[in-house]
Amino acid sequence: MSLADTRYSTRRRKLAAELASQRIDAVLITHLTHMRYLTGFSGSNGALLLRKDLSALVATDGRYTTQISEEVPDLEALIVRAVGTGLLETLAEAAQQGPLRVGFEAEYLSVSELKALEAAAPEDVTLVPVSGVIEDIRLTKDSQELTKLTEIAALANQALEELLAAEELRVGRTERQVAADLEYRMRLLGSERVSFDTIVASGPNSAKPHHGADDRVIERGDLVTIDFGAHLRGFNSDCTRTFVMGEVSDFAREIYETVLEAQLAGVAASTPGTALKDVDAACRDVIEKAGYGEYFVHSTGHGVGLDVHEGPWAATTGKGELAEGMTLTIEPGIYVPGRGGVRIEDTLIITAGAPKIITPISKELTIIGS
Amino acid sequence: MSLADTRYSTRRRKLAAELASQRIDAVLITHLTHMRYLTGFSGSNGALLLRKDLSALVATDGRYTTQISEEVPDLEALIVRAVGTGLLETLAEAAQQGPLRVGFEAEYLSVSELKALEAAAPEDVTLVPVSGVIEDIRLTKDSQELTKLTEIAALANQALEELLAAEELRVGRTERQVAADLEYRMRLLGSERVSFDTIVASGPNSAKPHHGADDRVIERGDLVTIDFGAHLRGFNSDCTRTFVMGEVSDFAREIYETVLEAQLAGVAASTPGTALKDVDAACRDVIEKAGYGEYFVHSTGHGVGLDVHEGPWAATTGKGELAEGMTLTIEPGIYVPGRGGVRIEDTLIITAGAPKIITPISKELTIIGS
Repeated sequence: MSLADTRYSTRRRKLAAELASQRIDAVLITHLTHMRYLTGFSGSNGALLLRKDLSALVATDGRYTTQISEEVPDLEALIVRAVGTGLLETLAEAAQQGPLRVGFEAEYLSVSELKALEAAAPEDVTLVPVSGVIEDIRLTKDSQELTKLTEIAALANQALEELLAAEELRVGRTERQVAADLEYRMRLLGSERVSFDTIVASGPNSAKPHHGADDRVIERGDLVTIDFGAHLRGFNSDCTRTFVMGEVSDFAREIYETVLEAQLAGVAASTPGTALKDVDAACRDVIEKAGYGEYFVHSTGHGVGLDVHEGPWAATTGKGELAEGMTLTIEPGIYVPGRGGVRIEDTLIITAGAPKIITPISKELTIIGS
Repeated sequence: MSLADTRYSTRRRKLAAELASQRIDAVLITHLTHMRYLTGFSGSNGALLLRKDLSALVATDGRYTTQISEEVPDLEALIVRAVGTGLLETLAEAAQQGPLRVGFEAEYLSVSELKALEAAAPEDVTLVPVSGVIEDIRLTKDSQELTKLTEIAALANQALEELLAAEELRVGRTERQVAADLEYRMRLLGSERVSFDTIVASGPNSAKPHHGADDRVIERGDLVTIDFGAHLRGFNSDCTRTFVMGEVSDFAREIYETVLEAQLAGVAASTPGTALKDVDAACRDVIEKAGYGEYFVHSTGHGVGLDVHEGPWAATTGKGELAEGMTLTIEPGIYVPGRGGVRIEDTLIITAGAPKIITPISKELTIIGS
């Protein structure tokens, strides 16, 4: 059995242990991100049936027959179009020995899909909703996941540094041109796609946290917020920097320095055992004390992994605490409508000591083309 | 009321008529693509409650207060975090006048989301699954949709022509470099993102219909299949061309000419009133007669609109027939493992006469760098 297989079977063992505690005999995994997490399969149609005794069966359709045998060498594969119902039907024999409680992913399965599963379920199989179990297992990353997340963050990091070195961020260009150049550089460095739509928000647009990148021409004096991510083999990156074009106003300097102070406070607070709401508070307090509390309109951060936004959640309503091996973004912002905004975001790995920043681009106030 | 509002209210009227025939008093629209289709709202959190008397209410959270008032000027907006339950709760008063049957989107709502709605539903409100109604309305596009789809297809078309003119598709480059250049050109021309992961499948990879674009270096004699799409303001494009690098083998010429003949037959068959399975058969027959039937491993085509893959479905199991105002891809392929493959795909608009091809790039066998 290869190293990879051990990793996947370890995850399945954690899931099976949790199922046992919920008195569930087997679970049907249909969410593709979870299918990938638990087996390594990366195709666009697949499912996993895991029994509490750790025996497991995967399914996909004929397009992926070769791929599933390569990616999931340790599990038998059923080749069928309707993967969920196909796997359920394999339980008929076991259900004859006694009733079975089979879990399904209530957060991801549609009402129609559940109806189809219920119609296909053998007699004596009861479908039971399961929620949050795999998400909880995913919270803490293993060393290989952390390595891959560090690599994809470094790739995106390099693309931004190349963009700056090539002076592709400059007055007179549009937001879209800058976004296109950054995406192109990430792509050439090996990124399969962006992990979310790139944000290049300049001047008044920088005051809109969810601005994309449009035809606005970047002007001297603008704040320009760039929020960007790459994606490689399932893993995502997420990083934000804000730059000042040509000259910096007192207002821009004040909100920049405030956000940077808040961001550093959030990073410093990101240690094992710290409550997630306290990480949020560490950032938020700095901004509130500076009088900009009403302009920090979102949460402090989130985990990054197979999803670019996943747990843990650093928010005022955040639950639980940080633990070693988690990832977390720290991304405070100030957005003053009509005037401009600043956001600074790192992705961290929580370690026993200070967190490891995997997006180590300078956060000092940088004036472009001064 | 603006032109845009009329278009959205027309769609809501069609939906309300269908609901009346199903004895449903109101419908809760939570699928964002449908929210956009029925109201124009393009944010990432929103829902619509439409009653059978055509009165309607939209909801979004505080991030989109300004955006929803600009994009949906004709409807009142509820600002609330949980948009679905928020809208349902507004029915409490109406439900006191008599029981209400309220539809939900069974294909898109998760089991967990339905559970939350059921918990929030006022007394005397019964939630009823609704399936396929909006999809059916979307099948036939209005003139503005067709204009936008034509424009985005033209943008992608221009990017490919620029790529070829700049000789960025050439021996010695990797698939990923070519994909990056094509995506960059689409982006600079105004595309917001790719409509799906770009395929650049060269040599043996061209025999894999679902290959992406990797580090393989393109060689002389290769077949290279490029399948690509752009996205702008909700609308997608989809087009495939296969090129030959430097020299063409008898095998490559034979499968190319066969696929092209099949593709032209499929286009010719795409007229109003033709059964979708007959459109598929028109393509498939040509390939089967040439002895390559077993290597045409997918369906003939699909509609293109707010989703890059949507109805109608031209397949052996296709249901229904074509009508004026539908879109359809015609994309037969031959994939011979280990030897190579060809796919040629146009997107068509079905008209009273011959279909309009909105991806008018040359389909003649093109030898690159000969």
